[in-house]
Amino acid sequence: MFSQTDFVHMERALALARRGMYTTDPNPRVGCVLVKNGEVIGEGFTQPAGQDHAEIRALKDARSRGHDLRGATAYVTLEPCSHFGRTPPCANALVDAQVARVVAAMEDPNPQVSGRGLAMLRDAGIEVRCGLLANEAHELNIGFVSRMTRGRPWVRMKVAASLDGRTGLPSGISQWITGETARADGHAWRARASAILTGIGTVREDDPRMTVRAVDTPRQPQRVLIDSQLDVPPDAQILAGAPTLIFCGNLDQRHADRAAALRDRGAEIIPLANAAGKVDLPRLLKVLGERNVNELHVEAGYKLNGSLLREDCVDELLVYLAPSLLGMDSMSMFNLGAPESLDGRVKLNFHAVDRIGDDLRILARIAPQTSAETGTTPAPPSVSK
Amino acid sequence: MFSQTDFVHMERALALARRGMYTTDPNPRVGCVLVKNGEVIGEGFTQPAGQDHAEIRALKDARSRGHDLRGATAYVTLEPCSHFGRTPPCANALVDAQVARVVAAMEDPNPQVSGRGLAMLRDAGIEVRCGLLANEAHELNIGFVSRMTRGRPWVRMKVAASLDGRTGLPSGISQWITGETARADGHAWRARASAILTGIGTVREDDPRMTVRAVDTPRQPQRVLIDSQLDVPPDAQILAGAPTLIFCGNLDQRHADRAAALRDRGAEIIPLANAAGKVDLPRLLKVLGERNVNELHVEAGYKLNGSLLREDCVDELLVYLAPSLLGMDSMSMFNLGAPESLDGRVKLNFHAVDRIGDDLRILARIAPQTSAETGTTPAPPSVSK
Repeated sequence: MFSQTDFVHMERALALARRGMYTTDPNPRVGCVLVKNGEVIGEGFTQPAGQDHAEIRALKDARSRGHDLRGATAYVTLEPCSHFGRTPPCANALVDAQVARVVAAMEDPNPQVSGRGLAMLRDAGIEVRCGLLANEAHELNIGFVSRMTRGRPWVRMKVAASLDGRTGLPSGISQWITGETARADGHAWRARASAILTGIGTVREDDPRMTVRAVDTPRQPQRVLIDSQLDVPPDAQILAGAPTLIFCGNLDQRHADRAAALRDRGAEIIPLANAAGKVDLPRLLKVLGERNVNELHVEAGYKLNGSLLREDCVDELLVYLAPSLLGMDSMSMFNLGAPESLDGRVKLNFHAVDRIGDDLRILARIAPQTSAETGTTPAPPSVSK
Repeated sequence: MFSQTDFVHMERALALARRGMYTTDPNPRVGCVLVKNGEVIGEGFTQPAGQDHAEIRALKDARSRGHDLRGATAYVTLEPCSHFGRTPPCANALVDAQVARVVAAMEDPNPQVSGRGLAMLRDAGIEVRCGLLANEAHELNIGFVSRMTRGRPWVRMKVAASLDGRTGLPSGISQWITGETARADGHAWRARASAILTGIGTVREDDPRMTVRAVDTPRQPQRVLIDSQLDVPPDAQILAGAPTLIFCGNLDQRHADRAAALRDRGAEIIPLANAAGKVDLPRLLKVLGERNVNELHVEAGYKLNGSLLREDCVDELLVYLAPSLLGMDSMSMFNLGAPESLDGRVKLNFHAVDRIGDDLRILARIAPQTSAETGTTPAPPSVSK
């Protein structure tokens, strides 16, 4: 169904899509390659929101080089859109250009529009194929897929620890367990995220800025702080610059002054208490999904890390392991109790393992619970309407 | 100095040497390839102790195939021996065969004989080159090199843990955190060791056999037990079969019956107390070195693991990390206190990282202390006379 040539061009389209890694948010990262008579005549990738999608860029590129698009093949890493959003639908543009064939890596994950763009192309007599390098395309937009299919971001929790699983000395000192290369790599993961989440504990300990600095990006992720009692000092660095989103518990009269001071600093405050008066973490993910957060990057302390894990609010762990031992009374990665039996442990899959400088980077995904474990058939993912 | 052809033949000699991984103990694993007019005319690797060394095997192989060895090149992964041990010196055999050239990967690490074999060859007019793929050859015999240069074995400590660094539930249950593939891999590391060390805590918890079962080997490593008070039950599985070596603290009249019962089971008992009445671990390594232990494989609990680390008795960690989290009140890898500052942490180097089934295998070596850290110039390694 797919030729060797198809693979080559789709690989190129994926490489183009990756160029939008830090910039397309909240849109998906998409790449497009136009090929005619074996020659690449146009290329493009998604521009920042409100500007051209990948297909439009590629069509403009081909036309600016004087090419006639009739009979060309378009390789796109995601099904062309079929609806008027901030830009006109890309499927229309491909029909108007009279391309002969469209190869898509995957369908649009939004269940409301999935397949419509491809159908529109087929209706116009264009040959359509879908599914080439679908896995790679899915990985590229894992956050967008999560938001479209589950109504919540893909949650990636970053932890830096010693080989014996400790994140800092008993005193809290943790700078620096990993090397400079790993820290820069961590900033690249921040840069691709829509938002960065931390907790009041980390703000108190380290007063971090939670911005991207070690890599070059024109866009800073939205900063999100979990702070039940609005304890963050108004001069905390996390409040500097762009507005920070603060989730808190129930607000009463006692918090009014604090809230006013934080709003003065540009913060937006969202009360979102659970029954225990703490921030309701699953609902927080829903709220962030509604606010177009695709990938949520978490850098927090062991308490918030543990709460997020316990409340099924984590999709993958981004663990940097340093070549050192910190000892058993040093700080743990997660405030997580031992299970009753080994069957009850948090199960992961090692997705990728790489050396980053002198450290290891391990991407481990929370394994889906099987129905045997939960005693029920897993529910289909809920859909964002 | 070395040609592409030299590399190819030395790689082959290393591959041959690896065939002796489980069997040459306490001799080093050595491979030999004989080449004449571009053709491999003989191959061999070290046979079990008392039988032919690699060079002799290769010479016999070539002669049995009717080849004249005059003018041949011999590739050997270790300097040919120059002394009469259980077998006559290999250097003599190569001189007698009138080979024209000898390429060795590394010199004999024994400082008493290092260079003598090569000198003997040179004196006979043979062209000698040394140092080709020396690193690979060194790795292959890292235990033999350790015993020859430091008078102690290379100590490899195996630990299986979850990604958050926990080896078992608070109840002690740890079977099985890692998968079957990793467990079989662990047996391959046991099989290459001269001896396997554990502690009385592990015997009490798990009653392990500490034998090689998951891989095929004609030789079982010497089992070594650390048991200060001779608490091991005479029916413990570790005592079954071949004699086990038990290191204990000071023996007095109260221990006489226990000692007698253990000797009846074939155990050898070595009192080796330190000032605290515990087993003196650095001296234990010396004793094992004197008993020709090259690689010592440690599988113990967090207490003995911690003691060995604290007393500088570990050279590398063989860590299997399972894709799971066991929580912060589960068991730690090492009974090791936190350092005063990050500078004082145990520093490692990640030597190798591999996926083994669903688990990760990390080989991490204790980093040499720099003089800046100790405040003194590092002493040269002590030599076994």
